[in-house]
Amino acid sequence: MKKAVPDRIARLRAGLAECDLDGLVVSAPSNIFYLSGFTGSSGALLITAERALLFSDFRYRLQSREQAPNFEFVEVSRDLLQGVGRAAADIGAGRLGYESAHLTCELLGRLTEGVQNHEVVGVTGLVEDLRAIKSSDEIVPIRAAAALADRALDHMISLLRPGATERDIALEGEFFMRRAGAEAVAFDLIVASGPRSALPHAQTSTRELQPADLVVIDMGATVNGYCSDMTRTFAVQTATEQARQIYEIAHRAQRAAVAAVRAGARCGEVDALARTIIDEAGFGDCFGHGLGHGVGVDVHEVPYLRKGDETKLAAGNVVTVEPGIYLPDIGGVRLEDLLVVQADGAETLTTSAMPPELPVV
Amino acid sequence: MKKAVPDRIARLRAGLAECDLDGLVVSAPSNIFYLSGFTGSSGALLITAERALLFSDFRYRLQSREQAPNFEFVEVSRDLLQGVGRAAADIGAGRLGYESAHLTCELLGRLTEGVQNHEVVGVTGLVEDLRAIKSSDEIVPIRAAAALADRALDHMISLLRPGATERDIALEGEFFMRRAGAEAVAFDLIVASGPRSALPHAQTSTRELQPADLVVIDMGATVNGYCSDMTRTFAVQTATEQARQIYEIAHRAQRAAVAAVRAGARCGEVDALARTIIDEAGFGDCFGHGLGHGVGVDVHEVPYLRKGDETKLAAGNVVTVEPGIYLPDIGGVRLEDLLVVQADGAETLTTSAMPPELPVV
Repeated sequence: MKKAVPDRIARLRAGLAECDLDGLVVSAPSNIFYLSGFTGSSGALLITAERALLFSDFRYRLQSREQAPNFEFVEVSRDLLQGVGRAAADIGAGRLGYESAHLTCELLGRLTEGVQNHEVVGVTGLVEDLRAIKSSDEIVPIRAAAALADRALDHMISLLRPGATERDIALEGEFFMRRAGAEAVAFDLIVASGPRSALPHAQTSTRELQPADLVVIDMGATVNGYCSDMTRTFAVQTATEQARQIYEIAHRAQRAAVAAVRAGARCGEVDALARTIIDEAGFGDCFGHGLGHGVGVDVHEVPYLRKGDETKLAAGNVVTVEPGIYLPDIGGVRLEDLLVVQADGAETLTTSAMPPELPVV
Repeated sequence: MKKAVPDRIARLRAGLAECDLDGLVVSAPSNIFYLSGFTGSSGALLITAERALLFSDFRYRLQSREQAPNFEFVEVSRDLLQGVGRAAADIGAGRLGYESAHLTCELLGRLTEGVQNHEVVGVTGLVEDLRAIKSSDEIVPIRAAAALADRALDHMISLLRPGATERDIALEGEFFMRRAGAEAVAFDLIVASGPRSALPHAQTSTRELQPADLVVIDMGATVNGYCSDMTRTFAVQTATEQARQIYEIAHRAQRAAVAAVRAGARCGEVDALARTIIDEAGFGDCFGHGLGHGVGVDVHEVPYLRKGDETKLAAGNVVTVEPGIYLPDIGGVRLEDLLVVQADGAETLTTSAMPPELPVV
């Protein structure tokens, strides 16, 4: 991955020039990691046309050199952002950008103290937009994370039986991924059963599975700083006719949307393909969230596949496609794959089976 | 815990009056939880002399009523902070505080748009200072979290042998706590062995334990939203004379400081007691961090036991006492207990053995 970092900085510099900025202070941890490779808990970057500096404290002296060899390390003892501001003033970055969606008001005050008479300007999305297009060496850990989750799901399926709790199944899935080498989970695993499966953002509870429950499992791993994300839905021992019906509709919607993912397709159009199928089946009110989102260093990042979004997908985007149908107090279905957008289609990184008919386990 | 919440709001209102504020926007998740009980991933509070409002989106309609019955729920569909600002303007909160250490620049912009002509003022520490003094019903989950970590440590000790990796031992400790009911770990467990034990903020690695290693284990659980924190140090199979020596000094320093913890003692004085013992033994340069910190909803919060800090401890503070001696490239020792400050001393919540001589396992 190290190889790619200078290229990322070059692309960012082009963005700075377009925004008429002499430099950018990067404070969001995922952007720091993306640009430099640095993972310490305290740090900031300053990137100008000529220089690339990493600021942190003595604890990260060694780690910063190892992880971020393309950056000059600046050790700051007390006030990190004031130190960044001073350095920017010394370099003569007259118009300095900062990440307004991440920097706190207090830290902006420190930065401003440091830069003194220079101008500071809040910007959003400069690094995030670069991150949307993955290089092939970023696909490697995402693919590995997806594969880990696929294997863990098999293990979790073996635990789906009446009496098992959502929480125990989720813990076993997490432990499986972490024992197998995931440095973390991409997000707290969701195991939502019975009526709880109708909550799109259910937190895993201590509810015990019951026969005929729908069970939604939404999970992802983190490998080398990159996330995966996928969802499957099962029925326990037996399935109602209604459950089979909404599963089949969600499956058709998911397949139709996946088939439309390619460079140049508009996010809103892909969303509409899935949404129309669910609408026409009479469940339009039961799909209350967007179709998908980008995945990378963060598990939710640009681009977003959602209603009316005019953004065009580009080769190298990694996105989820995850329609759902949720029947309040009854149960829900969500089916999610992780895809790499290509010029003429998409590669699906998720390999777990997603049969066209509701799997009963 | 619910019972205590109205009292917390009353204490906060007294603080607002002192700062001449008509209201406070609370956006830090741990402060939201402390004041309201709400744990949703998106929310904010507005507290004025008369009103207490919780803002979130439709996902948290039900949860907010269950968790925060003392708050009026306001459903905001798109722009949370703008909604908060509008409500503040409607209520007529002319001078409105916000948490400048938490609120991002972008969200302050939204809040400011919402309040229009009213004045907004950045404040720090208002809620955090209240949180420093724990009520007896807050000690209950902290005690439970400490007890879970104690039991998990016993399990981890049984795994300390040459060839075991730091990472596997840490995973087993985490899994133990979470299977036993911890909702999370208070922080990523630290298992630092051999030369890595000399890094006060070591991240757990894949290093295999070797005979004569020092192993520092720093861990805590989270139970009902409250954290614990403790550290123990061991030698693997055999111990060098130097390792025994620094352990005994750290132990004496820890005991001396713990004996001095009581309401009215100054944080800097307690720190100095431990620091002097380590200094006089010739290892003053090898103890580069503060003696301790408050623990509660966050694992690091006020008060801080550190050099020169004039803050007086108060009954109900929960603090760590954790001196360390770190010999670069050789190894380190850290010994940490979690204490509840009382009028005439302190109760130690950590019950794991901490013998005066280096335990060899």
